Amino acid sequence: MSDHMIRQYEDELRSLREMVLAMGSLTGEQLDAAIAASEHPDAALAARIIEREPDADRLEHQIDHLAIRLLALRQPVAIDLREVLSARRVAGELQRICDYAENLAKRLIALGEADVEARRSLVSIGRFATAMVKDAMHAYFAEDAGEAQKVWNRDRELDAMYTSLFRELITYMIEDPRRIMAATHMLFMARDFERVGDRATNIAEAVRYTVSGVPVEEERPKADATKSMVMPTMP
Amino acid sequence: MSDHMIRQYEDELRSLREMVLAMGSLTGEQLDAAIAASEHPDAALAARIIEREPDADRLEHQIDHLAIRLLALRQPVAIDLREVLSARRVAGELQRICDYAENLAKRLIALGEADVEARRSLVSIGRFATAMVKDAMHAYFAEDAGEAQKVWNRDRELDAMYTSLFRELITYMIEDPRRIMAATHMLFMARDFERVGDRATNIAEAVRYTVSGVPVEEERPKADATKSMVMPTMP
Repeated sequence: MSDHMIRQYEDELRSLREMVLAMGSLTGEQLDAAIAASEHPDAALAARIIEREPDADRLEHQIDHLAIRLLALRQPVAIDLREVLSARRVAGELQRICDYAENLAKRLIALGEADVEARRSLVSIGRFATAMVKDAMHAYFAEDAGEAQKVWNRDRELDAMYTSLFRELITYMIEDPRRIMAATHMLFMARDFERVGDRATNIAEAVRYTVSGVPVEEERPKADATKSMVMPTMP
Repeated sequence: MSDHMIRQYEDELRSLREMVLAMGSLTGEQLDAAIAASEHPDAALAARIIEREPDADRLEHQIDHLAIRLLALRQPVAIDLREVLSARRVAGELQRICDYAENLAKRLIALGEADVEARRSLVSIGRFATAMVKDAMHAYFAEDAGEAQKVWNRDRELDAMYTSLFRELITYMIEDPRRIMAATHMLFMARDFERVGDRATNIAEAVRYTVSGVPVEEERPKADATKSMVMPTMP
């Protein structure tokens, strides 16, 4: 490559990283808004999350488009190749996290002012999952495999929090059937936050791959026991 | 390109299509198994779905790898380029459908013999969604934009079926709190099938894009009203 081409290539790699950075910021804002609206009902804030969702789709397409252009025209190798592939992967995960934020916003609007006091555990899960996403993105920009590993390890704790909230909500429904609809929305919302944590774990895997060149073959820790939960004993 | 290179390129495009075909068949089998085990409890069949899930992940990686190789080395243009991009997109959707089949299998194992009679609506939704996936894959191989459009249109009906089952299950929980746990699993299973239909719709969009070259900007029809559902009036 000529000097000019090398400079151009480096500029493109830099813009790819900047686009992923912008998408990471948007994702963090969407999650923070979903947590705030879970804590204090705020239909306008929830509506704003839904309005901004197309921005995430657009960014993902732009990242994918530039990544493919880089792959096709520049044929990067070794760490540069892994960096381009990871940018695509991370953008895909962020897009799915933004989808979850949109789902959360729709349910928050339906919930309205209902059951505000019961939402505390949901807010805790939301904060825990959001911190995982932010730390995974930090590890991505710092190319820090150690930090990525720490994020990955935290998924087990998130799953345990989710399992515990799931049990709490089921018991709550049994005790007061008038709250079944609200509790069902909260079950799905808790599940959305739990999935956000899974996506953060995937971002952490992409970081480990970029830095080390070794794809993560190890299975993600799966401590979500709710799928296998059977009926609690009736009083 | 030399004749030899053109032949090699055509061979690679053909293997890409064959890999997507193989992945489509696996996905259809996983969904059929999930429906069969919803209708007649069968823990061994459900366990088999879980065992086969890594095959889908492996196929998706192979497809993505070959697609990127084609993009990088062959620099396809026009319909060939769209075909490579669509193969990746379709493989991504199929992988997510296989994830849903795995989720369904885990919940079916937890449900055991519970509430077999209540699962009829779930089976209907499962059949409807699976037919959408199979027809979308047929449209993909036939490069038939008209058939793809028909699949896309059917998502609205699936969403209506889901909304109706959602209501049924909520009422069911209110009437008999002992069934809350089983009904909750069924709510999540119904949701998984509804998501399978969304993925079929995305495959249909990829087909329309491959054939026409115009990306689908139109919003997917969203008639899933459950996210906005409020508490039914209490008796």
